[in-house]
Amino acid sequence: MLEKLRAETGPSFDIVNAEGRSPIVLVCEHASNHIPASFASLGLKDTDLQRHIAWDIGAEGTARLLSRLLDAPLILQRYSRLLYDCNRGPENPGAIPELSETTEIPGNKNLSVEDKLWRINHIARPFHHAIEQFLDTRAAKSQRAIPVSIHSFTKVYKGKERAVELGLLFDRDPWLANHLVKSFPGINTQLNEPYGPKDGVMHLMNLHAAPRGLNHLMIEIRNDLIETERGQQQWAQRLSIPLQQAAAKLGEAK
Amino acid sequence: MLEKLRAETGPSFDIVNAEGRSPIVLVCEHASNHIPASFASLGLKDTDLQRHIAWDIGAEGTARLLSRLLDAPLILQRYSRLLYDCNRGPENPGAIPELSETTEIPGNKNLSVEDKLWRINHIARPFHHAIEQFLDTRAAKSQRAIPVSIHSFTKVYKGKERAVELGLLFDRDPWLANHLVKSFPGINTQLNEPYGPKDGVMHLMNLHAAPRGLNHLMIEIRNDLIETERGQQQWAQRLSIPLQQAAAKLGEAK
Repeated sequence: MLEKLRAETGPSFDIVNAEGRSPIVLVCEHASNHIPASFASLGLKDTDLQRHIAWDIGAEGTARLLSRLLDAPLILQRYSRLLYDCNRGPENPGAIPELSETTEIPGNKNLSVEDKLWRINHIARPFHHAIEQFLDTRAAKSQRAIPVSIHSFTKVYKGKERAVELGLLFDRDPWLANHLVKSFPGINTQLNEPYGPKDGVMHLMNLHAAPRGLNHLMIEIRNDLIETERGQQQWAQRLSIPLQQAAAKLGEAK
Repeated sequence: MLEKLRAETGPSFDIVNAEGRSPIVLVCEHASNHIPASFASLGLKDTDLQRHIAWDIGAEGTARLLSRLLDAPLILQRYSRLLYDCNRGPENPGAIPELSETTEIPGNKNLSVEDKLWRINHIARPFHHAIEQFLDTRAAKSQRAIPVSIHSFTKVYKGKERAVELGLLFDRDPWLANHLVKSFPGINTQLNEPYGPKDGVMHLMNLHAAPRGLNHLMIEIRNDLIETERGQQQWAQRLSIPLQQAAAKLGEAK
């Protein structure tokens, strides 16, 4: 069974515009809702796999457009976060969730140690190692890197509506979030909303950016605003100039 | 040249007592002063390679004895920190130091991008991936892990004498350091001395322990106290019981 899966699944990451010249390095860990056929949709209905529980709706499209506007590299996870959530460490029960929002995930229950390690070793680690190697290479070349992750969140969560439209999230490095919070007039922009470091969502940045001393930022966009390509274009445009200016400002400071 | 080095160097890490049953996972990133012959001692004299700039004197011996007393696994770096300091990220000039204390390191000057990447990919990453895989496996088995690193520091640094004998260092997780600071009567024990997180020395713990939410601790012993096997035995004994008790206490709290 595991051997069959190995043959079927390709690398768990894609790198778009690897030679991009921006100091910003885009990351999208919840880009995809893809689940290889042998996982039998983890026992979920197709409609569940279209919901935010399986991926960050609109995040990949927005990140790809932003990558083009900024000339920034973009590292994407190719599999659904229901298989393994790459913004969680393996100690976190949310890494392979048995329950997501209010939906039970039958295919994630009663996993063996071997099943768990397969997901860690084939979904999570190749993606994290791609980020690591990318940042290592920038460091060896003495090129700057500012990791910025692109996420989306659902407007209604456990029955409660969220007013925030743009969340700028941080834990160890408040600089970019504070610098950018006033850059989006007319947009309901909040720091560490709709969730923040206490919810464990800064895992990827705490793993890859903070220990290297790199300025970084996690961006959360409400997913009803980037469902369509038009929305994705608007938001990529909206984010690109402030991000570019902030990166330039950080560059001057060095 | 690089191909020759590849053939000559073995894996950059050793795992001692991998099946050890303690929740404590010992790490020793500055265990060795070994530099493969083709690096021509990085242009240093043999006497320099015996000094603390090349390794943490006495740390490996102490860590191996502690591993036995605790029945804890121990992950060791096999090469000198002058080749690559595994407690520094590749963005940190101290990772491949051109100057250590007051000694210039000729073999670390004017390195090409390829030279730097070789050190990152063959010295640093295999060691870090060994730690990562070890902790991933514990997580998949729902076994606890408390990373504890064993270091030593020099009594006289840049001409100044240090009174501290035992340093308990922390950044994101003060629990173990605070819990243990009164456990060594008659020993000059200090928190975050002779250096601390602002000096960048918490890199390994910030990389491997904090993002996983694992309690952790960095231990620094003054190296004149563990130069001899007798000193190493005394210190391994001294550390073992308080560490074991603290680990047990953390276990109860879960």
